[in-house]
Amino acid sequence: MKLQKFALADVTLERSPGSDAEIYAGNLVDERHGGPVTIGYGRYAPDQTLTETMAVDDIMILLAGRLSVSTGAETVEAGPGEIVYMPKGEAVTIRSHEEGAVTAYVTYPHWRSARG
Amino acid sequence: MKLQKFALADVTLERSPGSDAEIYAGNLVDERHGGPVTIGYGRYAPDQTLTETMAVDDIMILLAGRLSVSTGAETVEAGPGEIVYMPKGEAVTIRSHEEGAVTAYVTYPHWRSARG
Repeated sequence: MKLQKFALADVTLERSPGSDAEIYAGNLVDERHGGPVTIGYGRYAPDQTLTETMAVDDIMILLAGRLSVSTGAETVEAGPGEIVYMPKGEAVTIRSHEEGAVTAYVTYPHWRSARG
Repeated sequence: MKLQKFALADVTLERSPGSDAEIYAGNLVDERHGGPVTIGYGRYAPDQTLTETMAVDDIMILLAGRLSVSTGAETVEAGPGEIVYMPKGEAVTIRSHEEGAVTAYVTYPHWRSARG
């Protein structure tokens, strides 16, 4: 592994697996590259919902727009420059609002390998 | 560990250890919390330089301003919304420009434990 820089334009966004929502993710670094973490960008169309039990620790950094993330116990809302930490094992529902959202994410370990 | 949301205002920034530069970092999640990753924010005053051999994998997301990161082999430059991946073992020089910079970062494993 060596120093790398990424921009949103570098990624190929694909629909988030296991969901019909208009939510897209694209890995830039993952299990194919030999390091411990997956790095990528996500894009949420307006008013989308995704429910998932976290298979890995997932850190989302909001770059644009706004997301709400709920567990049974609480709801957090994040906008540009804010960070949402979704630890492994948490069951979360992620909702985008009318402006949609763009995120950067880091997962440990690799989310695609963990989902099998 | 449970769902958490962070903003820049939540962090206490401290001068980056081992450097006299006007570069500050503040962990929000780290070895004190039992998870695998450290999460935090960084702030770079204008025209600062930091040279470091990475003890951990470090992913920086530029939130504001601009940074250049150089190895012997190459230099990358990143602005808002862009990601710089500095893998463990890389020797890097990070330079801020006239506008300074604000970053979010994720490291695996915990950078403070790895530096000893």
